[in-house]
Amino acid sequence: MAETDAGAAFVRWAIRIEYDGTGYVGWQRQTNGVSIQGLIEAAATKLVRGRPVPSITAGRTDAGVHATGLVVHLDFPADGKIDARQIRDGMNYHLKPHRVVVLQAASVPADWSARFSAIWRSYRFTILNRASRPALMEGQVWHVRRRLDVQAMQEGANHLLGQHDFTSFRAAACQANSPIRTLDVLTVHREGECVIINTKARSFLHHQVRNMVGSLALVGSGQWTPDRMGEALAARNRCMAGPTSPPEGLCLTGVGYPEDPFSQQARQ
Amino acid sequence: MAETDAGAAFVRWAIRIEYDGTGYVGWQRQTNGVSIQGLIEAAATKLVRGRPVPSITAGRTDAGVHATGLVVHLDFPADGKIDARQIRDGMNYHLKPHRVVVLQAASVPADWSARFSAIWRSYRFTILNRASRPALMEGQVWHVRRRLDVQAMQEGANHLLGQHDFTSFRAAACQANSPIRTLDVLTVHREGECVIINTKARSFLHHQVRNMVGSLALVGSGQWTPDRMGEALAARNRCMAGPTSPPEGLCLTGVGYPEDPFSQQARQ
Repeated sequence: MAETDAGAAFVRWAIRIEYDGTGYVGWQRQTNGVSIQGLIEAAATKLVRGRPVPSITAGRTDAGVHATGLVVHLDFPADGKIDARQIRDGMNYHLKPHRVVVLQAASVPADWSARFSAIWRSYRFTILNRASRPALMEGQVWHVRRRLDVQAMQEGANHLLGQHDFTSFRAAACQANSPIRTLDVLTVHREGECVIINTKARSFLHHQVRNMVGSLALVGSGQWTPDRMGEALAARNRCMAGPTSPPEGLCLTGVGYPEDPFSQQARQ
Repeated sequence: MAETDAGAAFVRWAIRIEYDGTGYVGWQRQTNGVSIQGLIEAAATKLVRGRPVPSITAGRTDAGVHATGLVVHLDFPADGKIDARQIRDGMNYHLKPHRVVVLQAASVPADWSARFSAIWRSYRFTILNRASRPALMEGQVWHVRRRLDVQAMQEGANHLLGQHDFTSFRAAACQANSPIRTLDVLTVHREGECVIINTKARSFLHHQVRNMVGSLALVGSGQWTPDRMGEALAARNRCMAGPTSPPEGLCLTGVGYPEDPFSQQARQ
């Protein structure tokens, strides 16, 4: 239990959530549509009879981007008993019929932050690489007709590994103080008709993953040599990198912490 | 080229299609909604300026059942030139915005039948086995909360392998002449939060896969011993087997022929 700035007592809970981002405006509240944040806070509020439950997320996903393991923390009013199962099942009840669900819930210390305690984020980007448009995977893949060379893409990807100034892969609207990031993982492989790009870093700049993928697609289709990835990075100029890939292929797959807040939670 | 019963010349094409069965009434034309057959024939008809293009399918999937590799043949009027790429891309254009696409097209002899020439069909059934309902996979999985024992399910499944009278797993409405079928494959394994059931046979009775899955779920949740699968089979009585599983976890993954009609088709 702890107190908010306004002096109200609260208990902090971490939740891990999954959602299909199709049709939502992204994580953050906006005036022009339904946000994941709005849905999550509304569902939590219903559990405590209308009292506000503010949230902080480990990742503000864009409109159309999905998540299978986003972590968020919620501050519930302290005067009431609630357990992990009630939060998960109760929120899932109130989240219907939206394609947003709580997978796990765990109580965390009041100074634990889903955002600032996180030490890594991981994303997966899926390209459907075939002639025909997607049917079953519509809205969850980027459709690229031209055959992609995954080996060349991996070669290009390797230029981005490590600590760099990622200005060339950063959205104009990015609010981060520094363009320096350390990329720990950027792999490209084929799975059936799909090309899968996995990446992991302590944190990413706004649109960084989609901008890296947009450039990797140029390498895969032969329009860029793999070395051009390194040149684009070195230029520190957004105009020197490829276009931003569409959001629907992107999925936030996980967030890591020094200690997993959910590890004590038995499967319920 | 060949002639229909009415004497019209036609050329027969095989197509391999993928679709998300959500919201459709199934393969077969019905008065109460949109059918995959109706969409496929309408798209083909648009390619030949309104002339009818009848179809025969290798599998009449139920409402809500999906396909990643269903094979269908179409009889196009013979007076006009059309190639595989025009059929695939042209039909895909006319199939928009439906979640139905043509993956491949190949010309076949006039006596070749997508249905009668087929020597096997394969299906995959996906159970999402976790506490929270599906978000990203909604409409493509059967959600079972109770932890399933896949080893017990596999043991139960083994009782059904080989040639048997499958009356216990056959829908009342089944129109097949004989309840005898030969089951070549029935495997159960876990993939992350999912339990996947794969099966393959020359042909299946109506609802056979969904009825087998419904019984296997009883084994997985401990309500049935694995041996009970064998007893249910031996009873040759639908009432002795488990309930029919919901359609949305089921996907027709492939159809096999003595010679693959699409093998000559280079990736275009």
